[in-house]
Amino acid sequence: MPIRNKNLSKLKSGYLFPEISRRKKEYLRKNPDARIISLGIGDTTLPIIPSIIDEFVAKCREMGTSEGYTGYGDECGIEQLRDSISKRLYNGIVSADEIFISDGAKPEIGRLQMMFGDENKFAVQDPSYPVYVDSAVIAGQTGLLNENSGTFHGITYLPCSPANDFFPDLSLIPENSVIFFCSPNNPTGAVTTKEQLKSLVKHAATKKAIIIFDAAYSQYITGGDLPRSIFEIPGARDVAIEINSFSKMAGFTGIRLGWTVVPKELSYDNGESVYKDFSRINSTVFNGASIIAQHGGLAVLTDRGMQALSEQVDYYMNNARLIKTALDGLGYTTYGGENAPYIWTKVSGLSSWDAFAMFLEKTHIVCTPGAGFGPAGEGFIRFSAFGQRSDIEEAVRRLKVVTA
Amino acid sequence: MPIRNKNLSKLKSGYLFPEISRRKKEYLRKNPDARIISLGIGDTTLPIIPSIIDEFVAKCREMGTSEGYTGYGDECGIEQLRDSISKRLYNGIVSADEIFISDGAKPEIGRLQMMFGDENKFAVQDPSYPVYVDSAVIAGQTGLLNENSGTFHGITYLPCSPANDFFPDLSLIPENSVIFFCSPNNPTGAVTTKEQLKSLVKHAATKKAIIIFDAAYSQYITGGDLPRSIFEIPGARDVAIEINSFSKMAGFTGIRLGWTVVPKELSYDNGESVYKDFSRINSTVFNGASIIAQHGGLAVLTDRGMQALSEQVDYYMNNARLIKTALDGLGYTTYGGENAPYIWTKVSGLSSWDAFAMFLEKTHIVCTPGAGFGPAGEGFIRFSAFGQRSDIEEAVRRLKVVTA
Repeated sequence: MPIRNKNLSKLKSGYLFPEISRRKKEYLRKNPDARIISLGIGDTTLPIIPSIIDEFVAKCREMGTSEGYTGYGDECGIEQLRDSISKRLYNGIVSADEIFISDGAKPEIGRLQMMFGDENKFAVQDPSYPVYVDSAVIAGQTGLLNENSGTFHGITYLPCSPANDFFPDLSLIPENSVIFFCSPNNPTGAVTTKEQLKSLVKHAATKKAIIIFDAAYSQYITGGDLPRSIFEIPGARDVAIEINSFSKMAGFTGIRLGWTVVPKELSYDNGESVYKDFSRINSTVFNGASIIAQHGGLAVLTDRGMQALSEQVDYYMNNARLIKTALDGLGYTTYGGENAPYIWTKVSGLSSWDAFAMFLEKTHIVCTPGAGFGPAGEGFIRFSAFGQRSDIEEAVRRLKVVTA
Repeated sequence: MPIRNKNLSKLKSGYLFPEISRRKKEYLRKNPDARIISLGIGDTTLPIIPSIIDEFVAKCREMGTSEGYTGYGDECGIEQLRDSISKRLYNGIVSADEIFISDGAKPEIGRLQMMFGDENKFAVQDPSYPVYVDSAVIAGQTGLLNENSGTFHGITYLPCSPANDFFPDLSLIPENSVIFFCSPNNPTGAVTTKEQLKSLVKHAATKKAIIIFDAAYSQYITGGDLPRSIFEIPGARDVAIEINSFSKMAGFTGIRLGWTVVPKELSYDNGESVYKDFSRINSTVFNGASIIAQHGGLAVLTDRGMQALSEQVDYYMNNARLIKTALDGLGYTTYGGENAPYIWTKVSGLSSWDAFAMFLEKTHIVCTPGAGFGPAGEGFIRFSAFGQRSDIEEAVRRLKVVTA
């Protein structure tokens, strides 16, 4: 029979969130009466706002008419949406044709990895969104897992902890590497300041590295002079790709819509254009996001859409404050939860999976064990603020039975 | 800077259909008054039927309510849809949990390639859908392109021509290889008989190969005892994966919905489960098809949906007959166009790209040059039957100026 991609055997057993879902189901099987509140996966719960729904419906109706029906679109997305993202979210600092519409950040990361083959050095913040590492493993960019440390050979982990205020030591970045960097950060909730981001861009330029900047939570930045895009930083066009998504800003987790910015200046060590390759990959193993989702995206980017969405962001951020205040009151040390919908919580004396189990058992609340995000996540758990308010209030009541 | 995936430099310049689109735009720029009829890309043109639109709209409206809103779904798709595909399209010969809902065959092929890494032998029908070869190149399964022959080292091409009635010499299949096989075939329109498919399954078993069977046009089989799925053949569960799509059966080319069947029996040379790996890949670099598209898929698979769709298939197959009859009348030798929406047309004395240019110039009809599908496609052009009837009738009138 054909040979298995040798890199697949290196992966840890299962992707984090299905594993959590499995444990939750297992618990429910044994405790069928438990009413579980999920503050685990970062999944939106508010209904999509009416003006976006109307646009979805209008496009659906159009697809049922001879005049309005459209088939395959441009793999990169409809021009109007790319244009609208360029203007409204980037003030034109990236051009419409540098924006690739995707079906979300997760599949897009799989496609981005295809550009870098198996010969690159690779760095991630630790902890980080597990897809960065897992997709790099599948693409063959890493060696084996070190079972003791939980790290992969060939990946440089950039620890982010309270000790460095969750901003890593940039001198660790390897020469000519690909770096995944996320701000507002999932899972720690840390937000990179303009000065820090300048420093990251500068280090990447010096080390001739490419940053894949994940800005999926950028709309949760509401206060201060914090950058929402890496392209606000001079020089970023030479060193950065940015991925983003409508999932968390508009409740599109089930709708599937995102985008990626690949500046035309970006090149490999041999001078070839990264933009050109990504266009080719995109047209070869992708066929565009659903046209219905794309039209919804257009409605998001109107004045009315953006206004309504900032109200949704406020709602979730109020949830974050409730959770954070409750945990703080119980004696936990918490991070994030401001300008980011995650509360990163220190658990002392318990492994993060044990803390996960303890919260599930004592409060019927599902959180996410920090170790699932990388070795530096050990000793922490993540609470997501994406619940319905009534669930958050109930969670806050239930939390009172635990103490730090 | 990071190193480019070395396999990307092996690819031919651009993916076929964007190249055709580029040439069409170029022609229009020079001849702005030309009213071009596209019989090139296999893109549906009939509006989606009302009962499916209603289901889309109902789901969209639900996403705007607190009770009906859903976020991330199972990456493999909603249970009801997997179940419905198992029952209605496979009579239960594959189980619901062996069905993975995708956003279409093209991105799914990219994910399937991730299972086989860069150490496998790889075979394709020649001509074939370009994504099979291009995705294998990106994944590193091939050597360099031989510019003279237009073939890649490391790929076994299985020529399909009138000489072998478009069914390849199976003795060419390499041991332990991955074979892409498409029936009804794109581009030749050939349909594999049950006996031929039995023979393919038997050869794959003997050679310990895995067949990736592309059945995207299976609903176009309306006559005779022709197999619509490879799983109708005993033994196929040990050697085959099947990809399929709602694109051509329901006009979902812009909606993006498909599925893949991975039987649990399937294993690599080391005995590991292919099913298990595909589940892992699917949950790591995919996040499910749009929930709206999936609900539309449910409406497709009702009695009402299937009835209306068989009427759409009839419509396109009547188009195929009109085109085929016209070409035959002009002295061309044509293949396909029965149980398949493509008419594969022999062009003598012209290269297929020259024939493409000739048809564009003389008739303002866009077809697809056969050479774009592989070296054995040279000397042929493909006409797609997915047009609106009025366009097909106009195309038939215009064709009269050319002679074979």
